[in-house]
Amino acid sequence: MKRIESTKNATIKKLQVYIEKSRDRKRDDVFVVEGIRENERAIQSGFEPLWLFYDEAHHQESDILAVLDGRAPLIHECTSDVFSKIALRSGVPNWVGVYHRSKREVGDIDWSGAPLFIILEAIEKPGNLGAILRSASAAKVDAVFLADSVVDVYHPQAIRNSLGGFFDVPIFSDGSEEITSLLKEHHIPLMVTTLEGATPHYDVNLKQSCAIVMGAEDKGVTSIWLENADERIKIPMGGVVDSLNVSVAAAVVMFEAIRQRN
Amino acid sequence: MKRIESTKNATIKKLQVYIEKSRDRKRDDVFVVEGIRENERAIQSGFEPLWLFYDEAHHQESDILAVLDGRAPLIHECTSDVFSKIALRSGVPNWVGVYHRSKREVGDIDWSGAPLFIILEAIEKPGNLGAILRSASAAKVDAVFLADSVVDVYHPQAIRNSLGGFFDVPIFSDGSEEITSLLKEHHIPLMVTTLEGATPHYDVNLKQSCAIVMGAEDKGVTSIWLENADERIKIPMGGVVDSLNVSVAAAVVMFEAIRQRN
Repeated sequence: MKRIESTKNATIKKLQVYIEKSRDRKRDDVFVVEGIRENERAIQSGFEPLWLFYDEAHHQESDILAVLDGRAPLIHECTSDVFSKIALRSGVPNWVGVYHRSKREVGDIDWSGAPLFIILEAIEKPGNLGAILRSASAAKVDAVFLADSVVDVYHPQAIRNSLGGFFDVPIFSDGSEEITSLLKEHHIPLMVTTLEGATPHYDVNLKQSCAIVMGAEDKGVTSIWLENADERIKIPMGGVVDSLNVSVAAAVVMFEAIRQRN
Repeated sequence: MKRIESTKNATIKKLQVYIEKSRDRKRDDVFVVEGIRENERAIQSGFEPLWLFYDEAHHQESDILAVLDGRAPLIHECTSDVFSKIALRSGVPNWVGVYHRSKREVGDIDWSGAPLFIILEAIEKPGNLGAILRSASAAKVDAVFLADSVVDVYHPQAIRNSLGGFFDVPIFSDGSEEITSLLKEHHIPLMVTTLEGATPHYDVNLKQSCAIVMGAEDKGVTSIWLENADERIKIPMGGVVDSLNVSVAAAVVMFEAIRQRN
C-alpha cells in the first residue's frame, strides 16, 4: 500500500491524464473505473487491475483486498483532498481503479443456441453506449458489436452509464464489412432498424438467432446494412415526436426479443 | 424587432436568470425553449411566446414571423457574441424563446376509449423526465402524471431531451394521493412497476385503459402505489445488471402496450 498526500504526486497526475485523454488511455492500453460496485465487477469479470485508489476517510485497504482474490495491483490510500481530485463522487465510500485492457476474440463467441446480438453502427455518444450496455446486460445479450465506431468504448462515461454492463457483455469493434461477413458466415439474420419499408419489430421473429442493427444517433444505418438486411424493422410511432433515443430504441427491441423467447 | 448588441442588456440578463434559476422561472410563470424545431412546436402547441431571440448571422426575423401565426412576442435580433451567451448551441441557426406557462386542467382529460397514462413518482433527473416525454409522445401516451414531483418540469434539460414531447404530451403534477384518487374515480387500473411479487410486463393486459407507474430512479415506488396497485409488473432481467434506467424501463413498458394495442 502506498500513501498519497499530494495532488502533485506523479501517479495522480498520470491518472488524471488517463481520465481525460482517450489517446493516452489507448497508447498505454488501460482504462479507468470509478465506483465500488463497478470496480468489484471489473475484478470479478477478470480484468487485471494496475492501480486502485481509495479515500482514507472512507475506506480501508482490507475492503479492496477482500475482492482482489490474490491479484496484486498497487493500492493507493489517498487523503480526502487528493481523492476529490480524481473522483467524480468524493466524500463518500468510493474507489477508482486503472485496468489493463483485455482483447476479446471473436473466436470465443458461442454461436450455438439462438444468440442475440446488438450491432451499433457509428454510435457517437459514450453515454448512449453505456446506457445500451446496461440494457444489454439486463437482457442477457450475447455480444455487442461496434461497427465503424467513432466512440471511445473505454470512455469513463460509457463505463459509468453501463452500471457494470461494460464488464458483463462482450464488446467487439470492427468495420461494418467485417462484421457483416462474420455474421453471414455464421448464418445470423440481420434485423436492421430503419423507417423505410420496415415491419413493426414485434411482427418479426426474434426468437431465432439474430443481430439487431441500430444506426447512429442522427443518421441511422448506412447502405451496407440495408443491403445486407434479412429484415427491416421499425418501432411503430404515432406522436409529434417521430424518433426515439438510440438507447431507448435498442432496449425496446431487445426486450421484445426477450418477450418472444420467454 | 429589437436589436441587442450588448451582453449587459437588461433583457439578456433576465433571460440568463430564467435559464439558470428554477425559482425565478416559477415566480414569473415562464419557461425557456432552445432550438428552432422546439420553438416551432411550442408555438404550434399553443404556448404563448413572450420573447424570441435569434442570431443576426444565422437568421432573419421573417423566419420567426412565419411560424408565429399572428402572435406578437418581442422579437430580439442579437449579435453573434450576445447569442452565444444565451444559447447552448451557437454559430448555427437557432432560436431561444421565453413562454408563459399554461395550466393544463385534469378536467380536460379524455377518459374515453382506452387511454394509456404514465405516472412518474418522485422522479429526480430532468434529463430522465425529458427522455420519458420523448418516448411518451412517440408512443402517443395520453398524459404523464408527476406524483410528488421533486423535479422542475420546466427545467431546460427536460424540455431539450423531450425533443418536442414536452409540448405534445399533457403533463399534470400533484400528490400521489390525489392522483390515485383521480384514477380510481375513473376506473383506470394501476400497473405498478416493482420487483417483488410482480408479473412480467408482457403477461399483463395493457390493451385496457391503464396507468403505468414508475418509481424514482434509485428508490422505486412507495407504499401508496403498491397498496393501490391493480397489477404489479416487472421487466424480466437476467444479466449481471439487474436494473434499467427509468427512461428505458418506461419506454419498454409503453411500447409493449403499443404492441398489444396494434
